[in-house]
Amino acid sequence: MVLLIIFQNTKPKYLSQQIIKLIKTQKMKINRYEDISQIEREAKRDFIDRHSAFIHCESQATKSEKFKVKVKIGNEYKHPDDFDHYISWVQLWDGERMLAEASFLAGTQGGAPSQVEVDFYVVPTKTMKLLAHVYCTKHGLWQSEEKIVEVGE
Amino acid sequence: MVLLIIFQNTKPKYLSQQIIKLIKTQKMKINRYEDISQIEREAKRDFIDRHSAFIHCESQATKSEKFKVKVKIGNEYKHPDDFDHYISWVQLWDGERMLAEASFLAGTQGGAPSQVEVDFYVVPTKTMKLLAHVYCTKHGLWQSEEKIVEVGE
Amino acid sequence: MVLLIIFQNTKPKYLSQQIIKLIKTQKMKINRYEDISQIEREAKRDFIDRHSAFIHCESQATKSEKFKVKVKIGNEYKHPDDFDHYISWVQLWDGERMLAEASFLAGTQGGAPSQVEVDFYVVPTKTMKLLAHVYCTKHGLWQSEEKIVEVGE
Amino acid sequence: MVLLIIFQNTKPKYLSQQIIKLIKTQKMKINRYEDISQIEREAKRDFIDRHSAFIHCESQATKSEKFKVKVKIGNEYKHPDDFDHYISWVQLWDGERMLAEASFLAGTQGGAPSQVEVDFYVVPTKTMKLLAHVYCTKHGLWQSEEKIVEVGE
Repeated sequence: MVLLIIFQNTKPKYLSQQIIKLIKTQKMKINRYEDISQIEREAKRDFIDRHSAFIHCESQATKSEKFKVKVKIGNEYKHPDDFDHYISWVQLWDGERMLAEASFLAGTQGGAPSQVEVDFYVVPTKTMKLLAHVYCTKHGLWQSEEKIVEVGE
Repeated sequence: MVLLIIFQNTKPKYLSQQIIKLIKTQKMKINRYEDISQIEREAKRDFIDRHSAFIHCESQATKSEKFKVKVKIGNEYKHPDDFDHYISWVQLWDGERMLAEASFLAGTQGGAPSQVEVDFYVVPTKTMKLLAHVYCTKHGLWQSEEKIVEVGE
Repeated sequence: MVLLIIFQNTKPKYLSQQIIKLIKTQKMKINRYEDISQIEREAKRDFIDRHSAFIHCESQATKSEKFKVKVKIGNEYKHPDDFDHYISWVQLWDGERMLAEASFLAGTQGGAPSQVEVDFYVVPTKTMKLLAHVYCTKHGLWQSEEKIVEVGE
Repeated sequence: MVLLIIFQNTKPKYLSQQIIKLIKTQKMKINRYEDISQIEREAKRDFIDRHSAFIHCESQATKSEKFKVKVKIGNEYKHPDDFDHYISWVQLWDGERMLAEASFLAGTQGGAPSQVEVDFYVVPTKTMKLLAHVYCTKHGLWQSEEKIVEVGE
């Protein structure tokens, strides 16, 4: 959690150095999930939803056993699969560690709108903080919500 | 189609130029599936099986509907997941056309022997000739058997 | 550029919604370049420099002509090339658009510390904002400084 | 389909077992370089040349020193860079071992015909048998000639 406490006469120095660095150096836009139920305009809901990766998996895994993680792009809406506009790749991360990537060529969804999906199988050894990155060839990089998976014996 | 007509005392010149070229220019070894029930030595059966990709899917698909294709490496044996020896990527092909690739980092199988697997979802529009390529960081490139999927309305 | 204007009695709501969202949703750590001349501790300078991608190219390009972009990881220090710790991939971006990616297996640097590099060749049609993402198998994702390339006739 | 027509008492022993296996199991077409100076038809020369990867590097390298390997697709002709027809990736192999891969999105060559190229830098420890695989989104997989690089002290 990041806490901003701003008093009278504050100057930016009161913001944590970490936040300042973040704000200053954010060079590339990474789109992030938004709760579309809070968004009024249909076109915007569609735009956000069809680019958002959703991680579907159990919340608990057994240590050293194979664990299925589905990453599916879009929940209520579908993304085009056109030559000049398609979902090119999806990466699965556990915190700062990349686990796997699936990449696609245009046309694998039959050239029609679809919810691209892939099932990865990983063998966890400790709690995972799963997160997906998705790249759309027209609308850039999108980051999913984080999904915590507790790993027990 | 390749036609081999072999007479008594034939010499390679009777082989079609295409075959000769194929034979001459095969520069890189691509390991191919062998029926391990025909192999006597256990170590060799293990070696071949644990590197072989198996395509698990229905034999028939419905046109323009999402179709699940599991690629699993190994059937009876497991492959190591060591830093210097792991399954790095698997590609799914439909004939000469690449559909998708999944790549992995060492450790995603918990650092223990495993049958790496991934489920791709494609939307076919006509009959598919599925085939997988798998890369092991120690034992190179392996090609699966071909799996024909008929696609109907 | 992000501008923070903070008046007397401001509350967080006066920060732009974009900044607030950015701060709230930053789920995955993306390491960013720091000017190591400002860093006192040698070990930290080494750590940051050897993971930082530097984009080496001309500042001006000619429209529709091939343009060379070298991405080199590390400037003063070298990164290990061990099986469990190596530079796995580097992506070249133009703003939100990915141009190309180079991926490596452990050992391509001879198993010794090295400055991984790759030369991409792109044909620009308008001003580019080049930026690289680099993935280290032990220390995660690193983002380079942005390099603006003006594109003229 | 492979058809073997074998007349008068011939036996497969005239063909090596390796060739027979190769012929039987060659499931996916991998296009290989042909000397286009031997090809009469211009359209065919163009087709082959613009898909062929050429490895440009010195024939001798120094052990444990960084060594530049350029892979360039096409020598006399250029390949399109259209959304539905472009060079998607190129892999650099040393025998059965993959060294690196560069992947591209459509448009990185400005949307016009070009000779896609990339410079890899590897640190060899022994003689290399370099070979490139190239994937065209319309015409499949192409394998380069092999380039031997002697590695001395």
